[in-house]
Amino acid sequence: MAGSSFGNIFQITTWGESHGAALGVVVDGCPAGLSLSADDIQPYLNRRKPGQTKIATPRKEADEVEILSGLFEGKTTGTPISMLVRNTSQHSADYSEIASYYRPGHADYTFDAKFGFRDYRGGGRSSGRETIGRVAAGAIASKLLSEFGISLTAYTKSIGPISIDMAHFDKSAITETPTCMPDREASAHAERYLADCMKEYDSVGGVIECVIDGVFAGLGDPVFEKLDANLAKAIMSIGAVKAVEIGDGIDVAKHRGSKNNDPFRMENGQVTKSTNHAGGILGGISDGSQIVLRAYIKPTPSIFSPQQTVNKSGEDIEISIKGRHDPIIVPRAVVVVESMAALTLLDALLANAGAKLENLKKIYGV
Amino acid sequence: MAGSSFGNIFQITTWGESHGAALGVVVDGCPAGLSLSADDIQPYLNRRKPGQTKIATPRKEADEVEILSGLFEGKTTGTPISMLVRNTSQHSADYSEIASYYRPGHADYTFDAKFGFRDYRGGGRSSGRETIGRVAAGAIASKLLSEFGISLTAYTKSIGPISIDMAHFDKSAITETPTCMPDREASAHAERYLADCMKEYDSVGGVIECVIDGVFAGLGDPVFEKLDANLAKAIMSIGAVKAVEIGDGIDVAKHRGSKNNDPFRMENGQVTKSTNHAGGILGGISDGSQIVLRAYIKPTPSIFSPQQTVNKSGEDIEISIKGRHDPIIVPRAVVVVESMAALTLLDALLANAGAKLENLKKIYGV
Amino acid sequence: MAGSSFGNIFQITTWGESHGAALGVVVDGCPAGLSLSADDIQPYLNRRKPGQTKIATPRKEADEVEILSGLFEGKTTGTPISMLVRNTSQHSADYSEIASYYRPGHADYTFDAKFGFRDYRGGGRSSGRETIGRVAAGAIASKLLSEFGISLTAYTKSIGPISIDMAHFDKSAITETPTCMPDREASAHAERYLADCMKEYDSVGGVIECVIDGVFAGLGDPVFEKLDANLAKAIMSIGAVKAVEIGDGIDVAKHRGSKNNDPFRMENGQVTKSTNHAGGILGGISDGSQIVLRAYIKPTPSIFSPQQTVNKSGEDIEISIKGRHDPIIVPRAVVVVESMAALTLLDALLANAGAKLENLKKIYGV
Amino acid sequence: MAGSSFGNIFQITTWGESHGAALGVVVDGCPAGLSLSADDIQPYLNRRKPGQTKIATPRKEADEVEILSGLFEGKTTGTPISMLVRNTSQHSADYSEIASYYRPGHADYTFDAKFGFRDYRGGGRSSGRETIGRVAAGAIASKLLSEFGISLTAYTKSIGPISIDMAHFDKSAITETPTCMPDREASAHAERYLADCMKEYDSVGGVIECVIDGVFAGLGDPVFEKLDANLAKAIMSIGAVKAVEIGDGIDVAKHRGSKNNDPFRMENGQVTKSTNHAGGILGGISDGSQIVLRAYIKPTPSIFSPQQTVNKSGEDIEISIKGRHDPIIVPRAVVVVESMAALTLLDALLANAGAKLENLKKIYGV
Repeated sequence: MAGSSFGNIFQITTWGESHGAALGVVVDGCPAGLSLSADDIQPYLNRRKPGQTKIATPRKEADEVEILSGLFEGKTTGTPISMLVRNTSQHSADYSEIASYYRPGHADYTFDAKFGFRDYRGGGRSSGRETIGRVAAGAIASKLLSEFGISLTAYTKSIGPISIDMAHFDKSAITETPTCMPDREASAHAERYLADCMKEYDSVGGVIECVIDGVFAGLGDPVFEKLDANLAKAIMSIGAVKAVEIGDGIDVAKHRGSKNNDPFRMENGQVTKSTNHAGGILGGISDGSQIVLRAYIKPTPSIFSPQQTVNKSGEDIEISIKGRHDPIIVPRAVVVVESMAALTLLDALLANAGAKLENLKKIYGV
Repeated sequence: MAGSSFGNIFQITTWGESHGAALGVVVDGCPAGLSLSADDIQPYLNRRKPGQTKIATPRKEADEVEILSGLFEGKTTGTPISMLVRNTSQHSADYSEIASYYRPGHADYTFDAKFGFRDYRGGGRSSGRETIGRVAAGAIASKLLSEFGISLTAYTKSIGPISIDMAHFDKSAITETPTCMPDREASAHAERYLADCMKEYDSVGGVIECVIDGVFAGLGDPVFEKLDANLAKAIMSIGAVKAVEIGDGIDVAKHRGSKNNDPFRMENGQVTKSTNHAGGILGGISDGSQIVLRAYIKPTPSIFSPQQTVNKSGEDIEISIKGRHDPIIVPRAVVVVESMAALTLLDALLANAGAKLENLKKIYGV
Repeated sequence: MAGSSFGNIFQITTWGESHGAALGVVVDGCPAGLSLSADDIQPYLNRRKPGQTKIATPRKEADEVEILSGLFEGKTTGTPISMLVRNTSQHSADYSEIASYYRPGHADYTFDAKFGFRDYRGGGRSSGRETIGRVAAGAIASKLLSEFGISLTAYTKSIGPISIDMAHFDKSAITETPTCMPDREASAHAERYLADCMKEYDSVGGVIECVIDGVFAGLGDPVFEKLDANLAKAIMSIGAVKAVEIGDGIDVAKHRGSKNNDPFRMENGQVTKSTNHAGGILGGISDGSQIVLRAYIKPTPSIFSPQQTVNKSGEDIEISIKGRHDPIIVPRAVVVVESMAALTLLDALLANAGAKLENLKKIYGV
Repeated sequence: MAGSSFGNIFQITTWGESHGAALGVVVDGCPAGLSLSADDIQPYLNRRKPGQTKIATPRKEADEVEILSGLFEGKTTGTPISMLVRNTSQHSADYSEIASYYRPGHADYTFDAKFGFRDYRGGGRSSGRETIGRVAAGAIASKLLSEFGISLTAYTKSIGPISIDMAHFDKSAITETPTCMPDREASAHAERYLADCMKEYDSVGGVIECVIDGVFAGLGDPVFEKLDANLAKAIMSIGAVKAVEIGDGIDVAKHRGSKNNDPFRMENGQVTKSTNHAGGILGGISDGSQIVLRAYIKPTPSIFSPQQTVNKSGEDIEISIKGRHDPIIVPRAVVVVESMAALTLLDALLANAGAKLENLKKIYGV
């Protein structure tokens, strides 16, 4: 079912496995006339690269992007943009043992159930490396959105029991701390917590928050293509995400209507809301307030302590996973969440062009 | 963008507004040969009808389904099944006042921003009545899934501060209590709580849980069409849902990997998991365990206490909403959640037919 | 595979069978703000109604359209427009015999092969009545296109051996002759030819031409969504069409490049072409010239002379089809061709909104 | 609108320009378990390579395919297969002049109209090299179809005025003659004709026919996803195709029903047809006979004789195109037609899996 494509108008198709020759993405439906080069993409890819901090796997990957099509004289042409990253640091030999059993918390068993067999090297298609294509495409989406004054900021909100304090919010810390927390104190705390995790051969989960500023009211759709519905799919399609919230999220279930409704107010001649429990979306359509969403991410399933599982011969066994694995998925997934949100919002912005006859008349000058 | 269609293979297209002539759905891609009649659909629609209990609006709607196509001699023919429900109880006059301002928590403002104007009668397309089409289609999906031994059960898990006790789980209570709680004691408690809410001219939110039994391993997809991603979209596309969880959901963010991983074990010659933190999905593909999801639903935005808002002339005003409105959305949304989950799972089951060459050879006998 | 939907942005979903309760269409993705009523639709449906002339079946059908959703105060709201036509003149008893065998030239055998059984009453879903939904939707597409100065004209070009003479072109004759020929002399000739056909218990094929005026350059797409590719699909999806041509069509195969290339010339400060062998499309994109396409339509397969076929028991038999059948499909298909062309072109116009950044900036005023 | 993707279940996305770094395709939705290597793909690409005969441009291209993903241990894994061909023989300098004007018969003008500018080097995305991705994907589709006993054969039917004689049909000649004609005598004749064309600085069109054997009855769909409708789109989406026929094609317009209907007959216990005017498709669904289609292809628009056109400054000018261009498009398009037909048929075969409940029960063993 074309399960590797995302988006209706700005449509991306990702491909590639952890230990194949390369990974990449084809971006179709990008409007012509956007200035673009690899320099716009690489910084986003660098944000998800391994081997950069103590809390991430020391496995080094260059992850250098090559743009193969869709640009001419420094601008997008309106035709597909194909981008590719070569795999350089793969050691398939490491994975021979994994071939014979099903790692708990991984997709080994479900891939076999679906496809009859699997590329067991590094998780194959279910590896975190699959997100390279999403991030490269997300970089383009973010650049396009910035042409309309829209910007996205994702960051780590919590790691295990340690949460950021919004009063300490420091945007620069997102890219400067190994945790991607916008609170240097909380980040230092979380780093110590993760060091303990690693000593205990264990891993931990966390929360990523993404806010979107500058969105004008009217993007999204009333029924199945609701902006929040598509954001939920986008975020939940990232491996390891187990819950998605918009605005006040799960808390609304305990709210009274009198508290949860955001009053509209005029401000500088514009309709605004004096609170934002809704997280910027009403009835599936952006309301002009900041869009706020959160992704809840499970702990890295590859842990070094012994685990019970079964092998392909149908026997109960105990295993100990080897290799180098991050004790937490969250920091490297921050840019993935941001990318998926950007792709979703851009697609809604493009789809909105045909929402009313008046829009089309502006384009065609009638 | 065909925003009123859902599903890739089993595709539904809903239409209709609260106060239009009728609402309905076209179900395309339903396999031929399923026994079907209105008697399979009506019980699902009855579960979402208003006017049945003290905690729901006394507005009466017959909501009788008429099947207009796609059946022959009591069986589906493989061609589109068109179903229609006439609106009978609409009083458009009630809504004249609403036309001039934006109700907090509703889609009034965002519709105007997107489309330039709106059908303000009863919320138009953003009314809860829009779900009639989803439920009628969900009834067919549920019947098809039952042919494969798959069953869905959705129920109210909590209303405001009151949660069910799983130790008291009583399935029959789901359809017999006005709250749709499978725990009669909690339901009685919640009814009293809601009566207080109404006295205070207020409303409250709650949580719906849906479990799916009998799912075989291997349904879903590894990347964007992950089963959980599509479930997240399906559920978040229901008006008023602000968060979606799979399995342990938001709790995984605080879990250690050693706790969160579900060990595989052999049981009666079958691969099983001894716990189910994953909620039945690993790597976007069903793992053969029970699928568990939860929807967090905001309070009814239509409350009778005075609220601040703006009118279409751009003035700050205070309003008091009149009419008859449920103090809670949850009970009537239970069957909607179940329907959307059924549609999503069925679509994954159908898509899976082409996952491996072996499947196709079974069909074509080569 | 949602086989009853057509279009990407302006997406229609048709439903209904010849002898079911009703037939209809849901139009999703129609921009908000278009003035619309049943009076815009009915004239198109009247053009395909049976029982109006000697050369069409005397079976009478009211074919009155009811619009059930998507309009408010006389304008489209941007939400789905559901339209329905009740079947009133069906006599299922007529078809009992057909149930047992496969009519040559019909879809009886292929439906059974695909679905395992079929609704044999009047062809079921493969009946010409299926086009009611296309025409109702096409009427809306045509009205939208007219807002941009684009108009479509389809007519019968030939019936069997009798072709129109373009020197006699008389647009009013299209709707005033029973043949839909824009040449009253040829039409009279063709009527006599068809009378002979009927006397011989036979039927005949013909050609429909459709021209589109006022199309601006730039609509379409360079690869799979070429405007001509989508027109070809649109037209070939009409039952009985066996060939589609754009511009000079099959003749180009014998052309020299020096003849076939259309020279560009400046005219009134505009790029034009001094000839139009291309039929208004170059590289899949409209070039600003008139778009020209032709559909080649087979003879009515229901003929009264004896035919050889097989029955469901696998025996060779001879049959004589009874009932009332048109000796030619062409005249009633003219408005269907026009409708499918309108739907295709409108979809391209809508898709084009996002082709370049400049278009989007016009809409969003940045 | 994702204009570079084709197919619903077996979905391909092509990318790349004539003079970019590379061209390629991502194949998504390929069933797992098919043995596959570059050796299955390269022979198809070789069939469309330039520089091989006197009647094709001497420009040499290696066109070596690299498979970057989707295979493991020699088998498809069910995840996307990414294939890439590097461009090696491009001389962009040749194209500086073309940048300033619009070549007749090319997409230069329409690209500018749509996108605001264009990659003018070698036609950019509208180059014939765009078909590399289609052919690479078509090779996989053909291999999959062969697992079900289905085979495709495309060949040149005519070049200008010279047609093959079916009585001389010699399949081996398709790949051994420079014309791809399955009739060595006609081919020799056509070669002489083409030599004359070249001397006259001219080009010519021709016809490609494709037959599909071994198709079982029941593939396709009754309405918009008719097998013939999708074939028409597939074939018309190939640059330079101006007409598509199924079976008797345009001739049916002059047929009587008594001639055009194919009688069904029992043969060896199977339903067959004693003639095949329908070309193997009835009501949009395969009928078990040979599928027959034809593509009518215009002459190469790049001719060396002087032509009138306009430049980007809006002036009428006369140009003489330089460089190396084939005097005919047909022979190199034969494998493209075959590929597009294979992709379309395979997609129908996969979609058919869910056509009836019985099929699904076979897969899931219930």
